[in-house]
Amino acid sequence: MNHEHHQQLSNSFSTYFPLSPQTEPHLRAALESVLSNPGSLIRPQIVANLFTAFDLPSAHATELGIALEYFHTASLLFDDLPCMDDATERRGASSTHVEFGEAGAILAALALINRAYALVWKSVAGCSASDSSRQADALNYIERYLGVGGLLNGQSMDLNYAEHNLGGERRSDHAVTEEIAMGKTVSLIRLTLVLPGILGGALPNELQLLERIAVCWGLTYQIVDDLKDVLHTSEESGKTHSRDISLGRPNIALAIGITEAVRRLGRLIAIGDRMLQRLVDLRPTVAFLQELRVQLDAEANELIHSAYHQTVTSSRPTSLQGVA
Amino acid sequence: MNHEHHQQLSNSFSTYFPLSPQTEPHLRAALESVLSNPGSLIRPQIVANLFTAFDLPSAHATELGIALEYFHTASLLFDDLPCMDDATERRGASSTHVEFGEAGAILAALALINRAYALVWKSVAGCSASDSSRQADALNYIERYLGVGGLLNGQSMDLNYAEHNLGGERRSDHAVTEEIAMGKTVSLIRLTLVLPGILGGALPNELQLLERIAVCWGLTYQIVDDLKDVLHTSEESGKTHSRDISLGRPNIALAIGITEAVRRLGRLIAIGDRMLQRLVDLRPTVAFLQELRVQLDAEANELIHSAYHQTVTSSRPTSLQGVA
Repeated sequence: MNHEHHQQLSNSFSTYFPLSPQTEPHLRAALESVLSNPGSLIRPQIVANLFTAFDLPSAHATELGIALEYFHTASLLFDDLPCMDDATERRGASSTHVEFGEAGAILAALALINRAYALVWKSVAGCSASDSSRQADALNYIERYLGVGGLLNGQSMDLNYAEHNLGGERRSDHAVTEEIAMGKTVSLIRLTLVLPGILGGALPNELQLLERIAVCWGLTYQIVDDLKDVLHTSEESGKTHSRDISLGRPNIALAIGITEAVRRLGRLIAIGDRMLQRLVDLRPTVAFLQELRVQLDAEANELIHSAYHQTVTSSRPTSLQGVA
Repeated sequence: MNHEHHQQLSNSFSTYFPLSPQTEPHLRAALESVLSNPGSLIRPQIVANLFTAFDLPSAHATELGIALEYFHTASLLFDDLPCMDDATERRGASSTHVEFGEAGAILAALALINRAYALVWKSVAGCSASDSSRQADALNYIERYLGVGGLLNGQSMDLNYAEHNLGGERRSDHAVTEEIAMGKTVSLIRLTLVLPGILGGALPNELQLLERIAVCWGLTYQIVDDLKDVLHTSEESGKTHSRDISLGRPNIALAIGITEAVRRLGRLIAIGDRMLQRLVDLRPTVAFLQELRVQLDAEANELIHSAYHQTVTSSRPTSLQGVA
């Protein structure tokens, strides 16, 4: 995204959460810290472009985009807690709970969530005031994919992964791992791609294409992340070590092996591209997604290359041979 | 409330959160446990009666009432966590985090919150579809009092009470303790009393009276709770002991003394009654609140009696003499 747009969104990420002097100082400090450190802001960028593509008012794009970013950020604050992933670093700094205590991180996350629902409501009401069925569709979609039908379900499966992938379960590691990714990773991408469509009156087949693109992109992203973990080389030892192996975390590359994961990655990218081409044929204004896709996949392509190289030259780390 | 209405609301508390077989089993178990154990359900009862008083559709009353109960329940799940109040019992059973783990309790609470916002939207949209400014007022009010302007602020002050009531702070213990109660206790009572008014098109002076009644009732409730803590007699030792003293928690009776707390309690009840009488004069359909008030205050009156008795007979516990 261009620098100016990123700077604008970065400002909005901070200013869309007004903090008053009456806010309790610890809670305010935690929120100020979180709000001063946005992530990639790719969601608000996509939402902004899709709002233009679907002829929706841009002010409401920022509301929805920032809301999705707040939900995402809140989910990271919770995920990092000692009782979940117990991560001490995030976005190049100490995790919020390390710096402001667990209670501080939880209250900051809840404040982000409260603000996010308010912003979503403003956006949805502003886009579909005259169409109550479109409004209800959008709000049901949000409830479903943020709740036990999406994000929360994925996180709960993730936390109980050891139990789901062992014992009397009939589902394969692969199926469980992808189901977790469908909940944790695909849900917010779905909301990013599909909500502007719902609000903009996209036709049923357009919405279906947006859904499928979201699934392909979400799973692609997850496989790239899992491959990065597996192919990660420690600077000190020079040896490859997987954090997911040591923590017993779900990882598609561990579940089906590097070669198969790379193959699946290629397949998902190809299907996603085909769906996107069909969507662009129907609605040429969404062509910006193709440029974005190429940009985002530079990293994925590099990984495919590096992974193939490793498997072909048999320098695949020993610790992975059993699972690959 | 009559038994039949309580049973109906108790059913709604459970059935308004549809759980699918796809929900991850640990999360589902935690939610089933929480949903099978409602509290007093006083909020949905008041909302139901106020909807009738303001001529609003009853289906939307249950949505709003249950949503407020879900928010309340979620706040208890968070408050009970080890990093907050570290309470191991709630509603006569083990706390959710004791039974289902901290992560399980957090995810269940987030699921309740997600569902609650969805229900609030349905209720607000259903009541004020044709009046977008009334709709916006209701949603802003909800955001404010659930967020950093209300519930979350109160909880953060509560957790950092030791710091707020010590050191260079110029505010008295009393002011700080009441500000915490305004955030933690008054916020949800406000939403219960004022939202039906906003949605039902109450006049500005009626809304102001509802606001004031909410503040009086919320602070009354908090003082009763604090007095209960201070006057609590251990069955084994026969001696009075305050949990709030031992945990260093805010407590109005500890901040201003039992006698003053009882006096303040009486004053708040009197002011609340006066406001309520004025409201009933303007809108006779809310007279049901007077009966409810008498019913709820039976406990408060008993406490005033018992507290006066203790102070008059000088049997006030020694450990409280320094603070009383």
